[in-house]
Amino acid sequence: MSDTDATGDGAVPTDQAIDTKVDAAETAALDLANVDNEDRQAALHAIADAIDDNREAIQDANAADVEAAEEMLEAGEYTQALVDRLKLSEAKLDSIVEMVRSVAGQDDPLGETLVARELDEDLELYKLAVPIGVVGTVFESRPDALVQIAALALKSGNSVMLKGGSEASESNRVLFELIREATADHDAIPEGWAQLVEARADVTAMLEMDDRIDLLMPRGSSEFVEYIQDNTSIPVLGHTEGICHVFVDREADLDMATEVAFDAKVQYPAVCNAVETLLVHEAVAEEYLPQIAKRYAAADVEVRGDERTREIVDVAAASEADWSTEYGDLIVSVKVVDSLDDAIGHITTYGSKHTESIISEDADRAGRFMRSLDSASVFHNASTRFSDGYRFGLGAEVGISTGKIHARGPVGLEGLTTYKYHLEGDGHLVATYAGDDPRPFTHEEFDGEWVPGKLSR
Amino acid sequence: MSDTDATGDGAVPTDQAIDTKVDAAETAALDLANVDNEDRQAALHAIADAIDDNREAIQDANAADVEAAEEMLEAGEYTQALVDRLKLSEAKLDSIVEMVRSVAGQDDPLGETLVARELDEDLELYKLAVPIGVVGTVFESRPDALVQIAALALKSGNSVMLKGGSEASESNRVLFELIREATADHDAIPEGWAQLVEARADVTAMLEMDDRIDLLMPRGSSEFVEYIQDNTSIPVLGHTEGICHVFVDREADLDMATEVAFDAKVQYPAVCNAVETLLVHEAVAEEYLPQIAKRYAAADVEVRGDERTREIVDVAAASEADWSTEYGDLIVSVKVVDSLDDAIGHITTYGSKHTESIISEDADRAGRFMRSLDSASVFHNASTRFSDGYRFGLGAEVGISTGKIHARGPVGLEGLTTYKYHLEGDGHLVATYAGDDPRPFTHEEFDGEWVPGKLSR
Repeated sequence: MSDTDATGDGAVPTDQAIDTKVDAAETAALDLANVDNEDRQAALHAIADAIDDNREAIQDANAADVEAAEEMLEAGEYTQALVDRLKLSEAKLDSIVEMVRSVAGQDDPLGETLVARELDEDLELYKLAVPIGVVGTVFESRPDALVQIAALALKSGNSVMLKGGSEASESNRVLFELIREATADHDAIPEGWAQLVEARADVTAMLEMDDRIDLLMPRGSSEFVEYIQDNTSIPVLGHTEGICHVFVDREADLDMATEVAFDAKVQYPAVCNAVETLLVHEAVAEEYLPQIAKRYAAADVEVRGDERTREIVDVAAASEADWSTEYGDLIVSVKVVDSLDDAIGHITTYGSKHTESIISEDADRAGRFMRSLDSASVFHNASTRFSDGYRFGLGAEVGISTGKIHARGPVGLEGLTTYKYHLEGDGHLVATYAGDDPRPFTHEEFDGEWVPGKLSR
Repeated sequence: MSDTDATGDGAVPTDQAIDTKVDAAETAALDLANVDNEDRQAALHAIADAIDDNREAIQDANAADVEAAEEMLEAGEYTQALVDRLKLSEAKLDSIVEMVRSVAGQDDPLGETLVARELDEDLELYKLAVPIGVVGTVFESRPDALVQIAALALKSGNSVMLKGGSEASESNRVLFELIREATADHDAIPEGWAQLVEARADVTAMLEMDDRIDLLMPRGSSEFVEYIQDNTSIPVLGHTEGICHVFVDREADLDMATEVAFDAKVQYPAVCNAVETLLVHEAVAEEYLPQIAKRYAAADVEVRGDERTREIVDVAAASEADWSTEYGDLIVSVKVVDSLDDAIGHITTYGSKHTESIISEDADRAGRFMRSLDSASVFHNASTRFSDGYRFGLGAEVGISTGKIHARGPVGLEGLTTYKYHLEGDGHLVATYAGDDPRPFTHEEFDGEWVPGKLSR
């Protein structure tokens, strides 16, 4: 069957297996690109049903993972947070089933005519939204990530290589089998569109497959995403750090500034769009700092201030490292700045280009702040926590991207699509449009859909 | 001034220099993002004027490059083609000046409101087109590439790191100085937006700067572009191979098929969108092959056929390697296929996902061909040579991308842009939309432009 003995290298059988899997995913992707939205929807509901109907099997497998993880926890190898993320409670399963149905119900990201342009009489160009092809994903602990990414990939017509953490291997295997079987019953869905990857060596192999895997979506810590980015030429959609800022301008409504700074830190401190550093204009520092410090203290937020902050309120001292730290916790650093430009300068130096908000009643100053910063999201009088695919109205969230190319900030299903040009002609030759007496192009956009062999105009 | 002696490594001074240059480019990019189209246009016309007014200086420098290159040619180190590409004739200078003015006149790719969406009352989200930031480019021999890329970068508000080939160093230096001086006279254009990079070690350093350079645009041979892709984590916009196909279907108008196959090969054989392999359905092979073979013979096109082709026409034999060779010359490989699916299978196996065309009077078969292929451009009854930014009506062509992410196929100025989210609120908190009694979002798109501090609805 296989020539695993071809070399003495132990990696060979694994490499072969991953090769076969990527082959199957590539082949499936070509077919999946042409599956109707109705069929993709039906298949997604079948996945939701399969998970809903097999809770016991899933939870048995999950219990085995959790048990093993708890042993590692006792041995000091794993954290409690990891064990918590691993657990598939009834409520978690409810939300997984609900999520798959919600992805099924999203608008179809495929087939849309992005541009229709007449190049010349009877020569029509259509730019169409199509799937990217083969998406690779590598994620840590949470087994719900497997289902979510598979659902997003299927909805957007992409094949997917799923590599989960070894700590969730039993859960992942059961969930993957349910997904595979549920879609295998749908003739319209090509076999092989989803592939489970289990060996760590396979990840290394996948990172090298820049001619076969079109996009990587790592999920995990900043360090983990950075590791992936640094070790592949495949485009990566993911987010590393979220060092978000709120700037309380000299023209701020200070009550509003207190509410926003509180919401941005306290509403959910563990996430990437929570504020880490509060910048306060010196003109309002004396009035504002006691107000926000009191509010933070009541919620047990640890405040670390620069010298000027500490002249006004009694808080711990911030070190240089604080300005570039993503706490992910109830800790906030505070700095008094001389001017709007100082605030912009601080954010440019220490920020991670994720989300920044200015609190100001002065529109011009807000405009300058928003235009001058090279962050994916810049807000005026709103909490940084709004930086999220659901709140932005993007439908299903594929992820948040800290890259600037292809997809930026919160990413919806269109982040899993690209485009393709279809040209309908009638024997048109380029020679007609070149040489001494070239025929001119008309280049006129129009409303129309691509229909094979039919000209729209 | 500099601590070049910090280590014994000779690369240090160079590294520092490139570091300083990237610093300046990054700083300039933040300002350049907010320069009006009128100012960018005026600066581009100033560049065109400067080149037009300093032809002698340019040609003197170019003569030195050409002379040195001709010595290398005699020594067998350079090819005649390289020397030809190097030369800046009067006509070439005319076309450079014309090109810069044409880029100036393009529609502004920046500032467009891509989406305006009300999230809730008085909470409005705007997705705006913005420059990418710092673009790095590495190109071979042609000094006109320096001007073209600088012009495209300036028009789209990006800073640019320009690294040309050493064979064009004198020409590049003069052209760069003219560009720098011409834009330095415009107060609106930030100094430092364009940087000339000369040392080869600087390229290596640039490839590592994935946190500071946002996009790379290599120009040169497939091998050269592949080398760049394989040695950086920075996204690359460029094209490697163009192995394009024309498929003459059993339902083809054979006269049309002859004209298109001829145009696709002969009109300009050296370019990436020229056809390399002609696939012919067996049902029409006997009638079609003698017809196209005669036509190709008259234009001195060398035909290399598979066995079945050679049973019908007297041509050279194609080897396996021919199917994946980009000739870039008056050579074409020809294969007889059993079916439409065979044609699709051949292209999927050997193609480079660039451009493919089907000649057929049957709309369903054309549709299947176009849908099933994962190529950037798929044509029906038209020459592959139409795959080009100018012909597609994209305005200035930034390049052709064989990647699938961000920009695909012929790329216009929008390939040098990304987007940014601006959110205008009135003290909105995420806590309002969470918890037990969450307020719902409205999520309604509307027509409106972002104006700082002003709500559109």
